[in-house]
Amino acid sequence: MVKIKVAVLGATGMIGQRFVQLLEDHPQFEIAGLYASERSEGKRLGDTLKVRDHAFAPDTLDMRIEQLDVDRIADASRVAFSGLPTDIAGDLESRLARAGSAVFSNAAPHRMDPDVPLLIPECNAAHLDAVKRQSSFKDGGYIVTNANCSTTGIAVPLKAVDSAFGLEFVCASTYQAISGAGYPGVPSLDIMGNVVPYIKSEEEKMEAELAKILGSVSGGRFTDHPVEMLASCARVPVVDGHLESVTLRTGRDATVEEMIAALERFTAEPQELGLPTAPLRPVIVRREADRPQPALDVNAGEPSRARGMSCTVGRVRKKGNFFKMFVLSHNTLRGGAGGSVLNAELANARDLL
Amino acid sequence: MVKIKVAVLGATGMIGQRFVQLLEDHPQFEIAGLYASERSEGKRLGDTLKVRDHAFAPDTLDMRIEQLDVDRIADASRVAFSGLPTDIAGDLESRLARAGSAVFSNAAPHRMDPDVPLLIPECNAAHLDAVKRQSSFKDGGYIVTNANCSTTGIAVPLKAVDSAFGLEFVCASTYQAISGAGYPGVPSLDIMGNVVPYIKSEEEKMEAELAKILGSVSGGRFTDHPVEMLASCARVPVVDGHLESVTLRTGRDATVEEMIAALERFTAEPQELGLPTAPLRPVIVRREADRPQPALDVNAGEPSRARGMSCTVGRVRKKGNFFKMFVLSHNTLRGGAGGSVLNAELANARDLL
Amino acid sequence: MVKIKVAVLGATGMIGQRFVQLLEDHPQFEIAGLYASERSEGKRLGDTLKVRDHAFAPDTLDMRIEQLDVDRIADASRVAFSGLPTDIAGDLESRLARAGSAVFSNAAPHRMDPDVPLLIPECNAAHLDAVKRQSSFKDGGYIVTNANCSTTGIAVPLKAVDSAFGLEFVCASTYQAISGAGYPGVPSLDIMGNVVPYIKSEEEKMEAELAKILGSVSGGRFTDHPVEMLASCARVPVVDGHLESVTLRTGRDATVEEMIAALERFTAEPQELGLPTAPLRPVIVRREADRPQPALDVNAGEPSRARGMSCTVGRVRKKGNFFKMFVLSHNTLRGGAGGSVLNAELANARDLL
Amino acid sequence: MVKIKVAVLGATGMIGQRFVQLLEDHPQFEIAGLYASERSEGKRLGDTLKVRDHAFAPDTLDMRIEQLDVDRIADASRVAFSGLPTDIAGDLESRLARAGSAVFSNAAPHRMDPDVPLLIPECNAAHLDAVKRQSSFKDGGYIVTNANCSTTGIAVPLKAVDSAFGLEFVCASTYQAISGAGYPGVPSLDIMGNVVPYIKSEEEKMEAELAKILGSVSGGRFTDHPVEMLASCARVPVVDGHLESVTLRTGRDATVEEMIAALERFTAEPQELGLPTAPLRPVIVRREADRPQPALDVNAGEPSRARGMSCTVGRVRKKGNFFKMFVLSHNTLRGGAGGSVLNAELANARDLL
Repeated sequence: MVKIKVAVLGATGMIGQRFVQLLEDHPQFEIAGLYASERSEGKRLGDTLKVRDHAFAPDTLDMRIEQLDVDRIADASRVAFSGLPTDIAGDLESRLARAGSAVFSNAAPHRMDPDVPLLIPECNAAHLDAVKRQSSFKDGGYIVTNANCSTTGIAVPLKAVDSAFGLEFVCASTYQAISGAGYPGVPSLDIMGNVVPYIKSEEEKMEAELAKILGSVSGGRFTDHPVEMLASCARVPVVDGHLESVTLRTGRDATVEEMIAALERFTAEPQELGLPTAPLRPVIVRREADRPQPALDVNAGEPSRARGMSCTVGRVRKKGNFFKMFVLSHNTLRGGAGGSVLNAELANARDLL
Repeated sequence: MVKIKVAVLGATGMIGQRFVQLLEDHPQFEIAGLYASERSEGKRLGDTLKVRDHAFAPDTLDMRIEQLDVDRIADASRVAFSGLPTDIAGDLESRLARAGSAVFSNAAPHRMDPDVPLLIPECNAAHLDAVKRQSSFKDGGYIVTNANCSTTGIAVPLKAVDSAFGLEFVCASTYQAISGAGYPGVPSLDIMGNVVPYIKSEEEKMEAELAKILGSVSGGRFTDHPVEMLASCARVPVVDGHLESVTLRTGRDATVEEMIAALERFTAEPQELGLPTAPLRPVIVRREADRPQPALDVNAGEPSRARGMSCTVGRVRKKGNFFKMFVLSHNTLRGGAGGSVLNAELANARDLL
Repeated sequence: MVKIKVAVLGATGMIGQRFVQLLEDHPQFEIAGLYASERSEGKRLGDTLKVRDHAFAPDTLDMRIEQLDVDRIADASRVAFSGLPTDIAGDLESRLARAGSAVFSNAAPHRMDPDVPLLIPECNAAHLDAVKRQSSFKDGGYIVTNANCSTTGIAVPLKAVDSAFGLEFVCASTYQAISGAGYPGVPSLDIMGNVVPYIKSEEEKMEAELAKILGSVSGGRFTDHPVEMLASCARVPVVDGHLESVTLRTGRDATVEEMIAALERFTAEPQELGLPTAPLRPVIVRREADRPQPALDVNAGEPSRARGMSCTVGRVRKKGNFFKMFVLSHNTLRGGAGGSVLNAELANARDLL
Repeated sequence: MVKIKVAVLGATGMIGQRFVQLLEDHPQFEIAGLYASERSEGKRLGDTLKVRDHAFAPDTLDMRIEQLDVDRIADASRVAFSGLPTDIAGDLESRLARAGSAVFSNAAPHRMDPDVPLLIPECNAAHLDAVKRQSSFKDGGYIVTNANCSTTGIAVPLKAVDSAFGLEFVCASTYQAISGAGYPGVPSLDIMGNVVPYIKSEEEKMEAELAKILGSVSGGRFTDHPVEMLASCARVPVVDGHLESVTLRTGRDATVEEMIAALERFTAEPQELGLPTAPLRPVIVRREADRPQPALDVNAGEPSRARGMSCTVGRVRKKGNFFKMFVLSHNTLRGGAGGSVLNAELANARDLL
């Protein structure tokens, strides 16, 4: 089978290199080019490494970074995976879509656009069709975004809860890893032995994005889910893995056992379609007293599948009308590059590539 | 003025030594003896140091640890400050009270006893009178407990909220320091670069204790406050300072400015009585985007007063009917030894010593 | 081929479980039993996990811990791998040898015994023959020890230096990981944001062991190498990987390029014999300005071989008559269980099992 | 007494703010202006805080940053304390000296200039006279530098050793704190749970600077000390305090007790002159098995004196002809701003201001 040529934008950054990690050996996609800002032009990928826990192949490390030129990117590849920084992503992604590229972006600017799917295939695969309303679609170009890393981690289990019992209220406090800020990112003087209870715009993103993701789509138009959502975000001295303390109220009552069962049995389109990057179990429930932990569970998943794509839930408790649980996900895989690769796999399965 | 003789129980532990720190130079109390388990008998305090950020006086460091003998303790001192471990505190404190000691304890066993005040003088000074219902009181002995470190940190600002607007609902997620587990406490292999979302019995304590503290007392009998309280507790790699993400709903509506004003102007009996260990401002509100932080704010307070006794609140936000804020307090001072010293100062002001 | 039955002693500890990790799937050895102190008897291995970065097979996790009974161990297996604590290792290993077991120990007590090889197969394979002088050898029992983790890490590259240029003087300062102290090991209050410049007996071990390892053997009797060796040991907040700053003087002069070449081309018996756990390159030299680093290089090695068995050297510099370099090794694999597994493989190749 | 007006250059940086901390309340000096690069012009000092463990006075926090204008600085103050970054320090300090300022610099560019003292008053007070050979001296301007933070920490105890026994050979490995790299400095992704065995130019500085500092001066010309010096530098996850493992050989033999006595009794001009920032004991020797530690000893010194100005030595051992010891010093106080303030106090005592 001929593989689909893809570009990685922002290839010198943490998320860009997570894209490369997932695409190095992908059954459907083939990296046609690595792109970043002018000052990295000509550098070997291996001389810009940010990802530390993956052994890239020697050929991958020898790939050279090219400049971000819309026409050349669109010529060289069908798909563009974007790990671009916020300040340049919005405009450049729009121009790429107009030039005919299918853009799968980890960046924030287009997430809340009325015709751009904020896609998590386990949650809202039906949203993908909205791309047909994008003006660039007639020439084959469109934009699909994945969600913020903190949103994604809870959206998958919350979708399971919503499907089973109806979701009315969510209060989430995050314990976010430093890799979420990219590299160089968080100065060590700020975070060693400390917690910083602030991440710019993160709470607003979580609150707005969850409503869009869990919402419905009809005629390509999105309607927000009515869930009441309250987020508080903090950075902790952890390298990878966003842990979140989630308190929620459902519409229909349930026991703790029913809640766990609903989380564990949850699967959706990615699992049914057998998408290559989809975990077999989107949500893994741990029953130990003290899990999930970033150091132990961030790469949870099946050995045969891409690691870091399952969300791990633990400490499911009930008090009054509320459930409490802790949720962990890999912020730069499930909540970053992995989300967009999965989105592109769904688009491919739907013949949109 | 003759100072009141006090004993420190558990003097080789973290909380015990915080008691010593606060009592070394106290205007009303004088350390008459340091007590710990048999295997520490005869050791110099200086050879058992757990507290690292206080310079004890040479004479203090040379004090010798004595064995925990109820009769000798009761003979040598009027007051016993207890930093004993849970497993031995319950019984030993009861025996001390029967022997005539006024016991001010940081330990958990007696906190929920129906005639034992769970006392935070800024929140519930009126509860102190309940000691008169204790059977030992006729001989001068009684027990007063301070609250769990995580409860105390939020109870003070929540009392301010309750007084001003009525408190209906609280959802709190904690970021707790390792010093809360004492020494040796948390193994470094468990917590370095990690978060552990579990602290045994901590959530249950927070939920039960807050209702007792904010509750009323009448005829020496306590009635719980009806607040709905949901706690989730996690340990983070921070040395001192419990940070808590608090989401709450009030009975009467308020603006963010009114909420901040109510927190800032809050004072209570300890301030009115000028208790020596009371902070001038029980609640300090920070307006920066990214505060409070354990590394920066754990010792907040007035230079002229005991450090670590103020609670710091920051990021006061409102969404819908809910307020969100982060709260920080020093877990072994305000939330530990400092709480009990303040309790004893209140008892002294009320002529109970 | 029938595999040789082996026992793992101290199977609830960090080193014991590194043995299990390396033996789970070993081509020559098969785990016949897991042993630990009485209080762990009957527990599942999976309920005692200390090793966090290896995915044990479900069957392995379900193995039960048995009590340390010399006769039963000797009956059930030909080889005993010992990760026992120092205080019980000495006596129990002696009794096992007398009962006919071939004991490969990570413990310190027998390391300096005059007829016990302190064996690193890359350094002193010829020392193995000394087991024939042990009184238990006539019945098939004997003891072979691996070296201290800090010694092993530098002994391999220093052997390369000694072979090429003669080694006269070594000054080593260590940056040792917390996993070297086992579990629970180092309290987080002691090491977070800190360095502790003391590890009991470690410097003495390094100085004595290096001379024995690099020394000669004749007629089963060891003669120390005359190298002048000065060690200073410190613990740093790193999970795995001992980094060491090494300054050395050689007998014959060399250039930096010659030194690097000698380190890189170094191989010995384990590589010639193709021992299963031997790395293809015992010493890997990095040329970047800032390597080796524990976080990046601790698991260095060939993907096809057991990870964590190569030593990584970097920053090879020369000043006057001295060479300076940094050396990194995995303290619980190369410097722990992996060392003893390699020793047993050498014994097997020499028909001593 | 009228205080001497001083300028702080680089006042938005870590070292600049350590200058402010030490000068806020100084008996001889008074801050006349704070200066930094153009982009900080007009900012409140309090809005640029890098120093976290000092409570600046409200008036200090309200001081405004001015632009680095040589003429205005020279007009407004007699002394300029420079915490400027290397790339602009060299030229700007030269121009300030020509404009008549007495420049006391923490920056590296002029340290090895043949007529610039590399001054540590405890080590080489006689070097100060060399300023008279600087061409700008006739107009009152000159430059005095302090040493690199890693050099300073060991230079003070090594001076004591040299004076007592003669110093022939030093091998030093460092465990350096992140504050040494300023702010934002070291990315947390690089250093959390890691050691980085490389700090640009640091080893070369240590080797060259120690020889100049311990060297002699005659007719204003410096002659290097013949000590053989080998340095290896590494960064560890510690906030403040450079620990160094030092192995040394003396010219005359000594016992461990004699070595400790020589270190403890060492005082020099700063102590004799009673310079305000001088510690009473330049070298403090700890006898515990596991000291000095950054977390416990970085601020060692007398309560009545500026903290962080003593060097702490521990674990003094002897093997063969070599002594081993660990040395700790505060890298931004003793090894940074404090060093230059002490230098200016010496200049003042010598009527050079």
